[in-house]
Amino acid sequence: MVTLSDFGLAAAINILSAFAFFLAFAVLRIQPMNDRVYFPKWYIKGLRYSPLANGAFASKFVNLDFRSYARFLNWMPAALQIPETELIDHAGLDSAVYLRIYLLGLKIFVPIAFLAFAIMVPVNWTNNTLEHSGLTFSDIDKLSISNIPNGSDRYWIHLVMAYAFTFWTCYALKQEYEIVAAMRLHFLASEHRRPDQFTVLVRNVPPDPNESISEFVEHFFLVNHPDHYLSHQVVYNADKLSGLVKEKKKIQNWLDFYQNKYERNQSKRPLWKTGFLGLWGESVDAVDFYTAKIERLSRDISIEREKITNNPKSIMPTAFVSFKTRWGAAVCAQTQQCRNPTIWLTDWAPEPREVYWENLAIPFVFLTIRRLIVAVAFFFLTFFFMIPIAIVQSLANIESIEKALPFLKPIIEVKFIKSFIQGFLPGIVLKIFLIFLPTILMIMSKFEGFISLSALERRSASRYYFFQFNNVFLGSIITGTAFQQLNHLIHQSAHEIPKTIGASIPMKATFFITYIMVDGWAGVAAEILRLKPLIIYHFKNFFLVKTEKDREEAMDPGSIGFNTGEPQIQLYFLLGLVYAVVTPILLPFIIVFFGLAYVVFRHQIINVYNQKYESAAAFWPNVHLRIIVALIVSQLLLMGLLSTKEAASSTPWLITLPVLTIWFHRFCKERYEPAFVRYPLQKAMMKDTLERAREPNLNLKGFLQNAYMHPFFRSSDDDDIDVAMEEWESNLPSSLRNARLRDLRRFLVNMVDRPSPSLHEVQNPKML
Amino acid sequence: MVTLSDFGLAAAINILSAFAFFLAFAVLRIQPMNDRVYFPKWYIKGLRYSPLANGAFASKFVNLDFRSYARFLNWMPAALQIPETELIDHAGLDSAVYLRIYLLGLKIFVPIAFLAFAIMVPVNWTNNTLEHSGLTFSDIDKLSISNIPNGSDRYWIHLVMAYAFTFWTCYALKQEYEIVAAMRLHFLASEHRRPDQFTVLVRNVPPDPNESISEFVEHFFLVNHPDHYLSHQVVYNADKLSGLVKEKKKIQNWLDFYQNKYERNQSKRPLWKTGFLGLWGESVDAVDFYTAKIERLSRDISIEREKITNNPKSIMPTAFVSFKTRWGAAVCAQTQQCRNPTIWLTDWAPEPREVYWENLAIPFVFLTIRRLIVAVAFFFLTFFFMIPIAIVQSLANIESIEKALPFLKPIIEVKFIKSFIQGFLPGIVLKIFLIFLPTILMIMSKFEGFISLSALERRSASRYYFFQFNNVFLGSIITGTAFQQLNHLIHQSAHEIPKTIGASIPMKATFFITYIMVDGWAGVAAEILRLKPLIIYHFKNFFLVKTEKDREEAMDPGSIGFNTGEPQIQLYFLLGLVYAVVTPILLPFIIVFFGLAYVVFRHQIINVYNQKYESAAAFWPNVHLRIIVALIVSQLLLMGLLSTKEAASSTPWLITLPVLTIWFHRFCKERYEPAFVRYPLQKAMMKDTLERAREPNLNLKGFLQNAYMHPFFRSSDDDDIDVAMEEWESNLPSSLRNARLRDLRRFLVNMVDRPSPSLHEVQNPKML
Repeated sequence: MVTLSDFGLAAAINILSAFAFFLAFAVLRIQPMNDRVYFPKWYIKGLRYSPLANGAFASKFVNLDFRSYARFLNWMPAALQIPETELIDHAGLDSAVYLRIYLLGLKIFVPIAFLAFAIMVPVNWTNNTLEHSGLTFSDIDKLSISNIPNGSDRYWIHLVMAYAFTFWTCYALKQEYEIVAAMRLHFLASEHRRPDQFTVLVRNVPPDPNESISEFVEHFFLVNHPDHYLSHQVVYNADKLSGLVKEKKKIQNWLDFYQNKYERNQSKRPLWKTGFLGLWGESVDAVDFYTAKIERLSRDISIEREKITNNPKSIMPTAFVSFKTRWGAAVCAQTQQCRNPTIWLTDWAPEPREVYWENLAIPFVFLTIRRLIVAVAFFFLTFFFMIPIAIVQSLANIESIEKALPFLKPIIEVKFIKSFIQGFLPGIVLKIFLIFLPTILMIMSKFEGFISLSALERRSASRYYFFQFNNVFLGSIITGTAFQQLNHLIHQSAHEIPKTIGASIPMKATFFITYIMVDGWAGVAAEILRLKPLIIYHFKNFFLVKTEKDREEAMDPGSIGFNTGEPQIQLYFLLGLVYAVVTPILLPFIIVFFGLAYVVFRHQIINVYNQKYESAAAFWPNVHLRIIVALIVSQLLLMGLLSTKEAASSTPWLITLPVLTIWFHRFCKERYEPAFVRYPLQKAMMKDTLERAREPNLNLKGFLQNAYMHPFFRSSDDDDIDVAMEEWESNLPSSLRNARLRDLRRFLVNMVDRPSPSLHEVQNPKML
Repeated sequence: MVTLSDFGLAAAINILSAFAFFLAFAVLRIQPMNDRVYFPKWYIKGLRYSPLANGAFASKFVNLDFRSYARFLNWMPAALQIPETELIDHAGLDSAVYLRIYLLGLKIFVPIAFLAFAIMVPVNWTNNTLEHSGLTFSDIDKLSISNIPNGSDRYWIHLVMAYAFTFWTCYALKQEYEIVAAMRLHFLASEHRRPDQFTVLVRNVPPDPNESISEFVEHFFLVNHPDHYLSHQVVYNADKLSGLVKEKKKIQNWLDFYQNKYERNQSKRPLWKTGFLGLWGESVDAVDFYTAKIERLSRDISIEREKITNNPKSIMPTAFVSFKTRWGAAVCAQTQQCRNPTIWLTDWAPEPREVYWENLAIPFVFLTIRRLIVAVAFFFLTFFFMIPIAIVQSLANIESIEKALPFLKPIIEVKFIKSFIQGFLPGIVLKIFLIFLPTILMIMSKFEGFISLSALERRSASRYYFFQFNNVFLGSIITGTAFQQLNHLIHQSAHEIPKTIGASIPMKATFFITYIMVDGWAGVAAEILRLKPLIIYHFKNFFLVKTEKDREEAMDPGSIGFNTGEPQIQLYFLLGLVYAVVTPILLPFIIVFFGLAYVVFRHQIINVYNQKYESAAAFWPNVHLRIIVALIVSQLLLMGLLSTKEAASSTPWLITLPVLTIWFHRFCKERYEPAFVRYPLQKAMMKDTLERAREPNLNLKGFLQNAYMHPFFRSSDDDDIDVAMEEWESNLPSSLRNARLRDLRRFLVNMVDRPSPSLHEVQNPKML
């Protein structure tokens, strides 16, 4: 029996642990030695330099200014002060819109919570059903719909509330969709010139006996887009090269490690055994060994690079085709080129940095087959994932550990350790699976053949949400594995399913409240601490870092991780909408989560994360769709619940809700979705015209020439923009070159970043 | 208990009645007076002239050449002899592809029937389950799956057969999709220059305070498609005008009727009473009365026409925009113009003759609302249509008739008549509803806002199929109204539904065989007789026809009626696929239907039907989809059936089938559907280039100028092509005019028809 005071205690514990995380964060972040872990974004933008470079030795590592410890929560208002427009400049539209999901949560649930507490809590509370029922119940349950007697007229109030909540949610969703669509269009319109605006990705170029792929592409587009075609770039199959480059990087790390080791202790040259994993075999000088290895790899890489460039078979039937105008590219991306719809497939090119090169060469037929395989595999993963885990769990018991590693036996046999392992092992197997789940889902998406990182992340997010819906939400309500539930549900009538689930929903409220506090509150607080990057950074810093550049590489800011973060938020939307009518006491917990997460992620986006790509909020239709799904699920479950409460006369009134919600979704889809998938010609024409007027002599061909070169063809030390810029400059007529150089540099710098002084001031930790 | 001989009798009766229809047709069609009923297509094409014009008086009306009666089935080989390419020239691609649906039926079911009879019939027959069961059973049932004992291993044979049938069906479907897509592309590529190739329909032009709609459209496209825009044509709201024109036509009919009457009996001028329906009031001379009325209407029409042209408010926010090249039109039709996706909506313009003008002005928001309304209305129509019918049935009983019309009482009270009415009335109410159902569905589609006749027919066909699936197929298996079934199914588990339906499927085989013979065989034979058009034609011919032109109007060839015909075929596909494994004896009946229908419709298409539009087989994706649905339904029902037969171990093997089928459908959709919804730029560019080379001085603007004028703006006596041609000629520079006139005429004649001598010979009845 859970009383309100029990709950208060649980909440207090979770609040305290969250507070502890914040405190730890506050202390750690103002230590100069951690500066690169907590402010990597500023380093990447070049607006902050290593504090280790100057000052006394002690103050290089530890912050001795004790006043700064007193203001340990100052980062919160600081994170909130920056206006959204500056945030978009600073971190991109994706991040800014990602934050809006949390805001949308607040916008939906704060008014709903007020209404629910004002009307439904009194209605539920002033009954005595539970007291007379003889069942055990908690104070929480007294506030929920369970406290209303069967067949009572009070259910009409819940019905009206369900309508009110649905309308409010839809209204908020519509408004948000409108705002995000406008933001996206504005963002796209005000963007600087970028290669992907002019470029279309052409896949499945058919083989031609007389011409090479490159010639064929050129001729095809010269014929079919005569006024607009500019140039193209073929795609090489560089899988082997990419493997070599990766290996070189790994070996380089080892070399750095041994060199550092040698520098610290110059008396002894570090040794390396040539056998398996360096465990046995002949001993050689490690630095020499790895230096030789790197030299060999570098030679291999340049040979391979040569081979790829000269071998026509390594050219894949794929090309990036660039046009003279945005209008031409928009036309080509949106139309069908050939009467056979499986060849000459055109689509917008992703940004150069977010192309997933490995998938560019998959032919059309394999795409369909791969999709089938992944669909079946995902089905089994969702509903049968417990089977392999159970097998591993049954293998990983004490007896088998003792058999495999008999020398551990005396330790394991200690009673305390034994019981600990026995209790711990099965859980850890499941936990490991759950940690690797997003990676597994990402591998599935990659196998399916998406060609841009944003598409990969969006697909993984959909799958992760589906998995969570089945295994966390339904799995907690109908206990048992997903497969048992599936079996259970298949054997019930369509009418019974919402009833079964609906009826057990009020009983699970306390469980979900605890879940929100542990997974949501504590999880968000742990997020800001960045424990894993902190440890890895210091580890790398100690063993591998030699130059300032190495240190920069070691800091690994990471990105938001749409594929794991968004499904988690969606689970809270689902819980909130389902429990809004049933057990409104859950709502404040969700509101606290959304508020906390908003502040924390705003801080992280400003100071930490460095997005790998900019999709201009292309994920919003998915976010919208999943909230709509949550809304419909909540309506169906309420219908099921009410029909078990002998309030059947009100159930038919609920059928209208899902119908209206689906219709609302279709309306939004037609009204706003095109802004996320198509590119209007009017806009393209406008930008083209403006550009022509401003820069009549622009050498676009030079600008685009090497934009879509495979990253491993570039020497690994240059970054993309430098290469593009050099190429461009070298292609300019020499008379123009000097005159325009200043403008170009400014343009390219702007493309990377527009530093805003106010941001800089706010974020300088010394000023806080 | 139905024995095989009972069945033989039923089949014999149906074969005889079909034979009687054919005989009647054979006699009627060679009477010269019916010539226009049975060969209207040839009159329309101008390849056949009225036999009434020459010869002896008697032979004008009755065929006295008795030898021609002996060859009364000659039309069948004649109908089959014409090759498909000539058929396409003669009747269009839509008709030719429509016939392929029947051929596809033969192609799918003939091999399946052979396999089923060779393997499954012996397997089923050599059991004694039914004989030992003590149940009543028919000989038909001995051939079906019911005769196999529960849990028998023989079910594995059915399982293997289900796989074989699925693979064969999918193979046939894929091949057919490929052929039809190729035919469509070839047809589109070899088409002559037509206005719709250059024209795009623009809807939801936003209002502009400074410009008229026409100016705004022109400026928008001049800016956004500067190199391709040619001209445009606004759409007027002519609903009132169209009402007036229709009324004039009706009055004209009456005038003709009285004029004819007067000519036959010149002694007395026909009179007309001015009161209600001409039943009472002052008597006036009917001819004068109607002549005056027509004059008044003609004046009103020209005033209204004037008003519409001068009033800017009667211009709707819609325009037909023409481009200089097919390429330009293809680009504009496939791209989004404006950042707001609900304005400046572009799509291919339908052919001028198939535009549904009334729907052109519906704004975007209303479209979504209308769709919701129609969806809800159709749901109620499908599942609750029995309610109003039951009410009407309860009203339309003998007592209420006697009350309303007391003078009929003595007649009704005659026992024979009374029992006849009592048995007949409820049936006739239902029958009337079913006759009007396609019209109701068509009204729904019109309300939904489709703008071309082909889209209207396609949508109505989908709805009609859904209705038939629910109320004929499921309704016969689970007896009861659709709503009772729905209620029944909702209260069953997802697992139970296929079981319930599957288990009762074998029992309904005899019913469906009878249904196929009555609805299919006799229905098809009745189709060729054209009883209704025959009566109407002679009626009109007697009362209304004055000139040869009137007679042409009276002959009404009609069109195939995709919206009613295709769903009927689909029902047979469904029955065939469902019963292929369960009761293979049903297959020969379906094969006979497909064969007979193929011959009959081929004859009708050659001699009778005159299509109202040419969509170049745009309906094929729908046909394909519905056969796939039938296939999946058959697989699910077989799964349900087998699981009740204690052959559960084989059921899991069946789950793969629907998964593979769905995947197959997605594959086909991606591979072939674009050929039906998009227009490849390569083709467009090719045709443009060819045309530019052949006719460098073509005045395209003139050709397109009035192509999309509202039909009621044309004087009602001209037909479209004449107007277009005159306009075009008058716009040609006079130097060119004479030189090109011959070419143009030939082109325009070709556009309407390319007569093929072989066709002509084959179809001349005198030669048969």
